[in-house]
Amino acid sequence: MMKRFFPVFFLISSVSFLYGQMDKNLNVMPVPAELVVSEGKFRVDTTFTISVMGEADKRLYREATRMLRRLDGRTGLFFKQDVISADRPEEGTSLIIKCNRPGEVRLHEDESYSLRITATEIRLDAECDIGAIRGLETLLQLLHTDEIGYFFPAVAIKDQPRFPWRGLLIDVCRHFMPVGVIKRNIDAMAAVKLNVLHLHLTEDQGFRIESKTFPKLHQLGSDGFYFTHAQIKDIIAYADQRGIRVMPEFDMPGHTTSWFVGYPELASAPGPYSIERTWGIQDPVMDPTREKTYEFLDAFFKEMTALFPDEYLHIGGDENNGKHWSASEDIQEFMRANNFSDQHDLQSYFNQRVLALLSKYGKKMVGWDEIFQPELPKSIVIHSWRGKKALVEAAKQGYQSILSNGYYIDLIHSAEKHYLNDPLPEDTELSDDEKKNILGGEATMWAEMITEGTIDSRIWPRTAAIAERLWSPRNIDGVDDMYRRLESVSIHLEELGLTHIKNINMLLRRLAQQYDVSTLRIFVDAVEPVKGYTRHHQGVRYYSYSPLTRVVDAAQPDSRVGRRFSRLVDRFIREQDLNLIDEMRYWLELWYGNHSYLFQIIRKAPVLEEIESLSYDLSLVSRFALESLDAWEANVTLSPSWYQHAAKALETAREPRGQVELVVLDSIKKLIMMANIGENEN
Amino acid sequence: MMKRFFPVFFLISSVSFLYGQMDKNLNVMPVPAELVVSEGKFRVDTTFTISVMGEADKRLYREATRMLRRLDGRTGLFFKQDVISADRPEEGTSLIIKCNRPGEVRLHEDESYSLRITATEIRLDAECDIGAIRGLETLLQLLHTDEIGYFFPAVAIKDQPRFPWRGLLIDVCRHFMPVGVIKRNIDAMAAVKLNVLHLHLTEDQGFRIESKTFPKLHQLGSDGFYFTHAQIKDIIAYADQRGIRVMPEFDMPGHTTSWFVGYPELASAPGPYSIERTWGIQDPVMDPTREKTYEFLDAFFKEMTALFPDEYLHIGGDENNGKHWSASEDIQEFMRANNFSDQHDLQSYFNQRVLALLSKYGKKMVGWDEIFQPELPKSIVIHSWRGKKALVEAAKQGYQSILSNGYYIDLIHSAEKHYLNDPLPEDTELSDDEKKNILGGEATMWAEMITEGTIDSRIWPRTAAIAERLWSPRNIDGVDDMYRRLESVSIHLEELGLTHIKNINMLLRRLAQQYDVSTLRIFVDAVEPVKGYTRHHQGVRYYSYSPLTRVVDAAQPDSRVGRRFSRLVDRFIREQDLNLIDEMRYWLELWYGNHSYLFQIIRKAPVLEEIESLSYDLSLVSRFALESLDAWEANVTLSPSWYQHAAKALETAREPRGQVELVVLDSIKKLIMMANIGENEN
Repeated sequence: MMKRFFPVFFLISSVSFLYGQMDKNLNVMPVPAELVVSEGKFRVDTTFTISVMGEADKRLYREATRMLRRLDGRTGLFFKQDVISADRPEEGTSLIIKCNRPGEVRLHEDESYSLRITATEIRLDAECDIGAIRGLETLLQLLHTDEIGYFFPAVAIKDQPRFPWRGLLIDVCRHFMPVGVIKRNIDAMAAVKLNVLHLHLTEDQGFRIESKTFPKLHQLGSDGFYFTHAQIKDIIAYADQRGIRVMPEFDMPGHTTSWFVGYPELASAPGPYSIERTWGIQDPVMDPTREKTYEFLDAFFKEMTALFPDEYLHIGGDENNGKHWSASEDIQEFMRANNFSDQHDLQSYFNQRVLALLSKYGKKMVGWDEIFQPELPKSIVIHSWRGKKALVEAAKQGYQSILSNGYYIDLIHSAEKHYLNDPLPEDTELSDDEKKNILGGEATMWAEMITEGTIDSRIWPRTAAIAERLWSPRNIDGVDDMYRRLESVSIHLEELGLTHIKNINMLLRRLAQQYDVSTLRIFVDAVEPVKGYTRHHQGVRYYSYSPLTRVVDAAQPDSRVGRRFSRLVDRFIREQDLNLIDEMRYWLELWYGNHSYLFQIIRKAPVLEEIESLSYDLSLVSRFALESLDAWEANVTLSPSWYQHAAKALETAREPRGQVELVVLDSIKKLIMMANIGENEN
Repeated sequence: MMKRFFPVFFLISSVSFLYGQMDKNLNVMPVPAELVVSEGKFRVDTTFTISVMGEADKRLYREATRMLRRLDGRTGLFFKQDVISADRPEEGTSLIIKCNRPGEVRLHEDESYSLRITATEIRLDAECDIGAIRGLETLLQLLHTDEIGYFFPAVAIKDQPRFPWRGLLIDVCRHFMPVGVIKRNIDAMAAVKLNVLHLHLTEDQGFRIESKTFPKLHQLGSDGFYFTHAQIKDIIAYADQRGIRVMPEFDMPGHTTSWFVGYPELASAPGPYSIERTWGIQDPVMDPTREKTYEFLDAFFKEMTALFPDEYLHIGGDENNGKHWSASEDIQEFMRANNFSDQHDLQSYFNQRVLALLSKYGKKMVGWDEIFQPELPKSIVIHSWRGKKALVEAAKQGYQSILSNGYYIDLIHSAEKHYLNDPLPEDTELSDDEKKNILGGEATMWAEMITEGTIDSRIWPRTAAIAERLWSPRNIDGVDDMYRRLESVSIHLEELGLTHIKNINMLLRRLAQQYDVSTLRIFVDAVEPVKGYTRHHQGVRYYSYSPLTRVVDAAQPDSRVGRRFSRLVDRFIREQDLNLIDEMRYWLELWYGNHSYLFQIIRKAPVLEEIESLSYDLSLVSRFALESLDAWEANVTLSPSWYQHAAKALETAREPRGQVELVVLDSIKKLIMMANIGENEN
């Protein structure tokens, strides 16, 4: 029996010594602008109370009450205080919050705060309640324990964001995301001080918002999956409560197939149209030459600008391939008549017309790189998905801009990579005034490959690293410490209802159709989904209705186990510390032994067959690494044919299977390379 | 290192042999009225398609499409069919669904269906689409695998419900439950063929629905936590899509404190009132003597009956202690003037007035046992929470009735107990016509001790056993087989978004503030929350804002481990099968060894201190059981003082700590009692 379950035992044990040290350091994320730790602890017990002083918006009373509930949820303490309100100040208050004025949820609102914790009192001061709300999140992150109980360490913090625009784009079009998904992600955004929810609402694959003016938009363009006005108002109110703006995006003139299902007269080519079920850049595009198009958009913007209070509205503007414009005689004639030399001129004309409509309704226009054209005034905001060069160029020319290039979290890159992507590196050649044009950035959660069951794990915890990049001073860039704090943030996000941790085993239970998924989990923890846009290739053709419930969907970006093992091996090779061998060996034995058990599960779950050979490969290369370690310890020389077999096994193991790839191969290779290889026997 | 992680290894291994056999049997739940298995398998591959024939409501097209997505989600198969609609019949269809007419979501609608699966075709026939929707759930439960792939076994099923009213009450008052919680529970209800969602919407502790007529009801009575009209409509539409009725309950004249915060003039005692923060029966009660009360209720019902399309409306009527009626001179005077002999007469008068209002708006009245008074006509429905005696008595007198006594899932009893609680046992002394008065039953999810994070685990999977009781023939009552199928249902429910499995570790991660919760989980799996209303005592005073995030909230009713261990020990004692000793010993060693590791975690998480001594006690009694087993195997006699110590340890271990209790003590006691005890040494 011992033999049978050997691998599982190792897996669990590993996790516990990964995180043992966390309570020795502060886990604040993003790191505040200024933080000084001093002696002393403010003890938290059932007498803990909060009072709000000064002139705050009522959102602060609700957030303070919610803070109390989050604090008792984490500590299990039965606080005596129930609801915090202006008319019920508490005696002998533990935490005193003071603001000078109610805040407004808008760009450039003052989000600064100061937090002073001593052994006897906590003071949170801010210009407005939105800064105070940011400070409450910091305070909650500071909760610690010792042998006596819960406490806040004595600190003095002065904090404000580096950039005023810190966003998360959620694409609710490629796969629709219900209100609950949006709300829990708003909670998570607030926890790491992001302040803009960018809702990508219309796409070739779906029109996701009710239009009362043009009801065929959502009725025929959404398969029934869209937000009603009431739901949008609910989302906006919920975000406002957390001090977060909601900016809608209506992508045009391209990415508009779903509009044309109900209103083909808007399109550049004759219909009929149906909702697009494949991914990629599509040909359908609005006809920018007909006045009817602008009449339609005028009425449409009238409705939507009344619904969304934010000052900014995103018009997309990206990825128009121009094919339908080239193919239309009328459009070509219009271009000639107006002396437009190419489709960019025509799109620029379209953008100017749209800009006029938005201005009429008091909105500022945001668009992707493609709208950065000299004909447009400096009031627009350029959203850079193509690269930082355009961002800087725009800033130099006097345009405000935000960065998303490098923050494409759908591409499954590491938190480290996003973290080190600074919108404004020290060597940027911009004047101080020009630098102010760079407003910040947004993580972009494109939704081709996610569902409501997996979206959280594609956003979190990695986006917390981006949030820190956009809030904290530039010189906060220690990757190891970022990852240390990310572990803590990740668990705190789960308290808010985020599913990024718990849905992994949920997905595995569905795959295995059984409760016990420990064996499958060992494999899944050692792989990552393929990166970038690779998933769209590899012989798999995805439609919008294809299943997203396979191993690749349960596999996580930025594998914790991969990171752990890689740091372990590197340290061992650097320091030759024999104490590290035990842990290396246990991982390798875990992977070596796991395949035979996983094989039994695969036999009963055909959906798992696609990863069978990869599991075998992991087992095989782990065995070679173990043999190499054994030989190294025993100072034994291995044969060239052993090495050839090992190298061959490594090569085979590199090949992704089921659209996942092993993340431990580089480290395993290092261990195999350690072996002394003898002369060729010939 | 081996020593360090010993317990974990055992835990995981155990789970895997618990469920090994499931694929050898059908996992349908509820069991159909008639089911015949034959030879043959219908293979499921990417060519699987569905067509709908006949006259169906459009809800069937959506449900059939959803079935396709659930099927590809579980199999990972890339089906070619995208959306099923009337205008797109498929060639060579795998599953043909046929209905005679569109159904209506109302009591007594025909829910029957027949399902015939052969190697070449699947036929689902029903009178209306609601029966077909029930059949789709059965079909999904039939999915199996073999060495070739996924298939449906050849079966012939003819099915219809035993009772027409199969409900789940969700109390959204004591703790508010957002729309997402309600929707996922509607999905779960549909999966086990429940057909009434009973929303308990108003209470002393909260008024949870927007009233446009009397806005102070929700504005002052809810702390901001209520359903808007738009949300209620959304819930009703969602339930309708699954063939589920939504019946609202507005509890009156008692349980109404939250109404009086905004409208104290409705109350029998002068205000002011504030939202009740404690649990239990409260004194505030409507004044039934003033005409203003009925004018208010008239306008209120006018609004609410327009919102809820169901024919039935629940007026509660329970637990009025009459204190404020006794204390009011005016009310006493009114009673004397009307020759009312007691408060029951007065409440009966109130009910008759309310009944008249409901009749005016075309609704039938449902109420708890207390409304069962001879003055009320036979058109009302009695909802029995007090006992089956009243149910039968009501039926005999010609009243229709539904049963909830025995289905109080908030009381943390076993699925077995609920399962064997038949609304109409064979020996019921009722005529066949009288029996028809017993419409069915409802599981009741009262919400004093739950939050949105824990509600699912209090409802599921146990409520699936109640669903089977209300749907399947009376003679389907095998407890072991029910539990076997419940495991499968539980995993399928998780596919729908239910959190009853995955939130356990989520709660434990919050408690331990670390990823690895395996040690804590071993303990939690061996305990259950205290039963019945005990949790309100034990020196803990709960308010509506008290934390529900402790070990007791992560602990599950009807412990799977407890059941497993108990059956194992009983079988061992019965059969003296030595092969069972290994598994018994591994559980005991698991519990014996776990405390020293858990102790390390408790040291860092003060919230866990309350269970420290119980974990120690589990360790201690497990050691005694191991010693007893050792002695039994070695045929060694143990001393009387050993036995006294063991008995003492058992006694101490019985005491709940942190409001949880060990579930393995009876079995451990049996093992300890096996020991040969020597003569007293004196």
